[in-house]
Amino acid sequence: MRRGSKLVLRVRALDAAQPFDAEEKLRRHSRLKQSLTIGVLGFGNFGQFLAKRFVQQGHTVIATSRSDYSKIAGDLGVNFFRDIDDFCEEHPDVVIVCTSILSTEESLRSFPFQRLKRNTLFCDVLSVKQFPKQLFQQLLPEDFDILCLHPMFGPDSGKHSWKDLPLVFDKVRIGTSPRRVERCHNVLQIFEAEGCRMVEMSCEEHDRQAASSQFITHTVGRMLGTMELAETTISTKGFESLLSLVDNTYNDSFDLYYGLFMYNKNTTAELSRLELALTKVKSELFDRLHERIRNDIFDDN
Amino acid sequence: MRRGSKLVLRVRALDAAQPFDAEEKLRRHSRLKQSLTIGVLGFGNFGQFLAKRFVQQGHTVIATSRSDYSKIAGDLGVNFFRDIDDFCEEHPDVVIVCTSILSTEESLRSFPFQRLKRNTLFCDVLSVKQFPKQLFQQLLPEDFDILCLHPMFGPDSGKHSWKDLPLVFDKVRIGTSPRRVERCHNVLQIFEAEGCRMVEMSCEEHDRQAASSQFITHTVGRMLGTMELAETTISTKGFESLLSLVDNTYNDSFDLYYGLFMYNKNTTAELSRLELALTKVKSELFDRLHERIRNDIFDDN
Repeated sequence: MRRGSKLVLRVRALDAAQPFDAEEKLRRHSRLKQSLTIGVLGFGNFGQFLAKRFVQQGHTVIATSRSDYSKIAGDLGVNFFRDIDDFCEEHPDVVIVCTSILSTEESLRSFPFQRLKRNTLFCDVLSVKQFPKQLFQQLLPEDFDILCLHPMFGPDSGKHSWKDLPLVFDKVRIGTSPRRVERCHNVLQIFEAEGCRMVEMSCEEHDRQAASSQFITHTVGRMLGTMELAETTISTKGFESLLSLVDNTYNDSFDLYYGLFMYNKNTTAELSRLELALTKVKSELFDRLHERIRNDIFDDN
Repeated sequence: MRRGSKLVLRVRALDAAQPFDAEEKLRRHSRLKQSLTIGVLGFGNFGQFLAKRFVQQGHTVIATSRSDYSKIAGDLGVNFFRDIDDFCEEHPDVVIVCTSILSTEESLRSFPFQRLKRNTLFCDVLSVKQFPKQLFQQLLPEDFDILCLHPMFGPDSGKHSWKDLPLVFDKVRIGTSPRRVERCHNVLQIFEAEGCRMVEMSCEEHDRQAASSQFITHTVGRMLGTMELAETTISTKGFESLLSLVDNTYNDSFDLYYGLFMYNKNTTAELSRLELALTKVKSELFDRLHERIRNDIFDDN
């Protein structure tokens, strides 16, 4: 090429590895294809806990919450919006509802769905499942997809790794177009990539199983916490595991426990079964006691 | 030496290591001094479990029981006596009562103490302590020593090692002569040598602590066992620890559980505290529920 009459040399290739550029382009394309813009609604402990991994996996994460978490969000590489309309206008591919059980309904009833893309995937991560499923079905525009999730771990148990920790999911309503199927797949892929044990289960079955396991665990933990059991110098291994159960449940908010109870219709029956079991154990002890005393009385006579 | 006219050579020393013989003799002497003849009364699971270690430590172990355990005893290197008088006439230094809580009183009331040496050390290993202490004080000849023990482990938890497992002991009545003091020391030494955590504690204090720890652990285990909880596909770590608690307690005999309850006078109060705690947890849930419904009612009006 000539500038004026002077011959100027120009670099036409940065390196000689042109054949690889095509591969790199493909790779970048595939990364971009899988990379999601994830909107986190409710940026408390659990929302932050999830957002951190989403960012690590290369997704774009935005968040909104009743309180201002701009500072924490900034530190995590998350873009925080105080205004929920601004949050929606970012057009996230996926909105993950990370509100507490008790505030979910109110949050969703006031949510400006119309500002989102015509088709958006909604997920929740509540510890009860039938309730958010029904709420989504009632409140979300028809064109929205619904994927209910329950990561059965949290900031404590999933601190270091999510390996082998259960993720329960129910594809409640996923459109058939390849783009929508793939988007749902990509959300599940986040948990699969971390090594979670993927458990596909209906929301109804989840709530049945959770009532007889998770709710009972929390109830026993709160019962023992209420007793104010203390470490003894002669604690057995069994007793120490009870004390650590108290640590892992009684320190959770009462709101969470009440949410597990109130928003899962199987828990009332399980609570009754627990009460009945204690009554039965006690009766067995006292029946034997009474029998012995009566035997003494009637032997003596 | 000559036999007939023939010269016969005789070996006068087995090896050349004569200087060491003195040390070896001292060592053997000290072993013999510490070695006890231990009589095990009640040769069920727990008696066998202890006897095995006693034999391994070089003590002479004899046993007697209502049932015939000659075969098992033989395999363990224990001399079993079907006749309790024969057992006593072996003059054990120590008798360790390994009967169940429920049969202890009857076993002791029919025991031919007069056939033992004038001074014998009696120990028990029950999971309650005030009861055997009082029984020993009432029934044993005045010259007998009393050492109450509670190894807070068993054939399962102490299968491989007793290291760091608690042994609770109370020197209830040990004569002041050096021989009696040393005999008591040698019994404790058995557990210390295995690495047990040695906890000296009065029988009364043991029962107070055990009621709020061991008895509560068993009660919760039996309560959950009665509920027939089953493994779910979504079990959390907390729930799995409850299931293993059921395995470790509900499979024990009801007799053991009844013994822990009946023969520890602090357990009735602890059982009430547990019941009250469950009632309180339930009330908190239902109060909040009622409040919510009432708010709806009175808002509507």
